[in-house]
Amino acid sequence: SGLVLVRNPHLDLMEEDVLYHLDLGTKTHNLPAMFGDIKFVCVGGSPNRMRAFAQFMQRELGLAGDGEDVVDICAGSDRYAMYRAGPVLSISHGMGIPSISIMLHELIKLLHHAKCRDVTIIRIGTSGGLGIEAGSVVITDTAVDSSFQPRFEQVVLDDVVVRSTELDKDLAEELLACSRDIPDFPTLIGHTMCTYDFYEGQGRLDGALCSFSSEKKLEYLRRAYDAGVRNIEMESAAFAALCGLCGLKGESCHFHLL
Amino acid sequence: SGLVLVRNPHLDLMEEDVLYHLDLGTKTHNLPAMFGDIKFVCVGGSPNRMRAFAQFMQRELGLAGDGEDVVDICAGSDRYAMYRAGPVLSISHGMGIPSISIMLHELIKLLHHAKCRDVTIIRIGTSGGLGIEAGSVVITDTAVDSSFQPRFEQVVLDDVVVRSTELDKDLAEELLACSRDIPDFPTLIGHTMCTYDFYEGQGRLDGALCSFSSEKKLEYLRRAYDAGVRNIEMESAAFAALCGLCGLKGESCHFHLL
Repeated sequence: SGLVLVRNPHLDLMEEDVLYHLDLGTKTHNLPAMFGDIKFVCVGGSPNRMRAFAQFMQRELGLAGDGEDVVDICAGSDRYAMYRAGPVLSISHGMGIPSISIMLHELIKLLHHAKCRDVTIIRIGTSGGLGIEAGSVVITDTAVDSSFQPRFEQVVLDDVVVRSTELDKDLAEELLACSRDIPDFPTLIGHTMCTYDFYEGQGRLDGALCSFSSEKKLEYLRRAYDAGVRNIEMESAAFAALCGLCGLKGESCHFHLL
Repeated sequence: SGLVLVRNPHLDLMEEDVLYHLDLGTKTHNLPAMFGDIKFVCVGGSPNRMRAFAQFMQRELGLAGDGEDVVDICAGSDRYAMYRAGPVLSISHGMGIPSISIMLHELIKLLHHAKCRDVTIIRIGTSGGLGIEAGSVVITDTAVDSSFQPRFEQVVLDDVVVRSTELDKDLAEELLACSRDIPDFPTLIGHTMCTYDFYEGQGRLDGALCSFSSEKKLEYLRRAYDAGVRNIEMESAAFAALCGLCGLKGESCHFHLL
């Protein structure tokens, strides 16, 4: 049917669903009217960047306004920022798995309540590249954990639920094909390693509060590269797992900064 | 000496330390002049709330201005917001362990570079209470994981480093004593459970995307209560672990919303 799958039957029995961190709700807002025609959702860490992306989409889609008039739909909450440009929703998710998980829970319930169909969701973020040219874009085929395994462990109460972190292969190829239309836009498909920490988890000798040997780091990164990892960031595993759980066509693309 | 301990000797050998997510650095800013006299750091999830807290502190401390003039020291970054009121620094950390870990790494290095002494750091956040009156404040003696253990597992490259999550007992008692001076301010000391997720990790039937039985949830929460857990949130374990690692006197206090 193209609708999102929400595997919690309790949700439809509730009188009201408050999407607390988005400052939206089923009683306070007409979600089908506000969001029913959304076809693409783009998510990224920084609120300013997601605002700039919505303005860019407005211009690209030739929509009214000069691109300066996008309004933060979640202005009543300072947890996330949300903008729309035609059929495209642009939302920030903060940093790290817990932060993106809260946003994705509420976003997916929003898409469910709004009866959206055939939605494609794309994470557009930054990452650290591994053995690739600075300025490259990595399109994730599979998110992997710090042992290079394609899985995401979600603790539900005291159970550990293991979920797959494969992303949509057709969408990945489609995005790669788009990149070929743009000159000097190095783009590749690869595995993305998702960590729980930026400094210690990614072994940043120039930033961590603890110490470790740079030899060990190099050896680890070599093993990661050999396992197919091309970049490292902090949200792709939860993103892939929740897209998979809810039947959303999802992809995660990362720009490798200098 | 009262200085913070930074257990990475590499840091002092670097020509420049860029605290990227705070938009501060050792070459671009005179950190000792800006922050050398800081004695208290208060951290919380929401940027707006930490701004309001800085304004409140300005009024409480009788500092010049009407409390409306606090300036975001990290305005060049939209990752975190930072304000100061006299010797008190007020900083947001976003939601979840990875987000607070990035902020604490950069904050602790800031205190190190600024040569701050005898700094007390207090997390002031919200949480869900467990068997306690709504509106209560829980002062954490120990943060525990979803198995009620007082430990925080930090993945450093592919090693798992286990750190203690005990907080400063004297400071906890001191804060409890303060609460007794205020009428109708229910406050207690207890364990705080720290989860990686808000909806599934905390078993929210009214919000999770997956399903589970409410009987299982009740049984789990009863076991948590029996283990001494009085509230649940998402940052205390990383906070306690990093305070302990760096010799910072730290406490975590949580207001239990309705």
